[in-house]
Amino acid sequence: MKIVQQEFSVSTKTRCQMVDITSQVQLIVRESGVTEGDAIIYCPHTTAGITINENADRSVPHDILLALEKAVPEHLAGFKHIEGNSDAHAKSSIVGCSEQVLISNGSLNLGTWQGIFFCEFDGPRNRKVFVQIRG
Amino acid sequence: MKIVQQEFSVSTKTRCQMVDITSQVQLIVRESGVTEGDAIIYCPHTTAGITINENADRSVPHDILLALEKAVPEHLAGFKHIEGNSDAHAKSSIVGCSEQVLISNGSLNLGTWQGIFFCEFDGPRNRKVFVQIRG
Amino acid sequence: MKIVQQEFSVSTKTRCQMVDITSQVQLIVRESGVTEGDAIIYCPHTTAGITINENADRSVPHDILLALEKAVPEHLAGFKHIEGNSDAHAKSSIVGCSEQVLISNGSLNLGTWQGIFFCEFDGPRNRKVFVQIRG
Repeated sequence: MKIVQQEFSVSTKTRCQMVDITSQVQLIVRESGVTEGDAIIYCPHTTAGITINENADRSVPHDILLALEKAVPEHLAGFKHIEGNSDAHAKSSIVGCSEQVLISNGSLNLGTWQGIFFCEFDGPRNRKVFVQIRG
Repeated sequence: MKIVQQEFSVSTKTRCQMVDITSQVQLIVRESGVTEGDAIIYCPHTTAGITINENADRSVPHDILLALEKAVPEHLAGFKHIEGNSDAHAKSSIVGCSEQVLISNGSLNLGTWQGIFFCEFDGPRNRKVFVQIRG
Repeated sequence: MKIVQQEFSVSTKTRCQMVDITSQVQLIVRESGVTEGDAIIYCPHTTAGITINENADRSVPHDILLALEKAVPEHLAGFKHIEGNSDAHAKSSIVGCSEQVLISNGSLNLGTWQGIFFCEFDGPRNRKVFVQIRG
């Protein structure tokens, strides 16, 4: 088995933002030379996450962030964490800090409408994404 | 390492539905001949997902779908996506579009009460599930 | 490829609790001798889960559990499951029953503030965690 580990940076502009990172991950897959296997996309931060969702219509990421904000309000009676970003930690655990995508014929085997997003919940910040390709 | 990739179809009947796909995945594991490793179960859709939960009592999937509906209402002030299924996209990112299960002795190493579910959030539709076995 | 499967027990003390299991997983990684690869951390229960979040300030797990309780109330009109723990099943599907972490230089490649947590949503109970190391 071949294992390739790479990382790249993401710079976010607002408190909550979904950044499409599909092309960066696809490039790492292509450069790895792996034709059949999988990619792990991992976020080493506790107030951010990785998700896969529609990247054709920009209103979809907007609405996902809105739905998460409704489910987890920024200020909730009982929050103890003094940094004031408890909602961002909760959203990170809800969305999750990693995703995995299958690789077929040397390419990410995403659905027609699927893209890979870095989810910022406590920006703006400079962030990292780890990618591991195996095959 | 051996890598086996298969796919199968799921036909959903209602807008929100959890379909037990454990036996289909188990069959792919058995046919792969892999005795120790893992299975990735991947949904290539942006308004559906994959989860692992109790498949003994049918009221559990019912209640999970109800809890998700409460957390993410179908209609929320501020949703912009014109297709009107923003809640389904959000639920997809909350539940996640893939799961992984360990394989031991040629079989899925699920807990006693665990089954694998395809989660439909914008049906009825014809859907696909990708499975990759590695070991 | 080398595959190592291990398991360990977690004893929870309250209904909802996040237990830091980073050191147990790190030990399994070290003993495996794998220097580059990944670890799958898997919970074989349907009212618990695995997440990765901050383990420096204890108020963070407290606030994540509070946010989940707000998003999924313990008692919701319409819940049918007679065991009365439907919220725990829903939280399990929201947080997810597994995580994956990359291994670099023989160690878990976690972010500075990241720890691995077993999430109890229907305790107190005796629970199991499966770990698979690959590299």
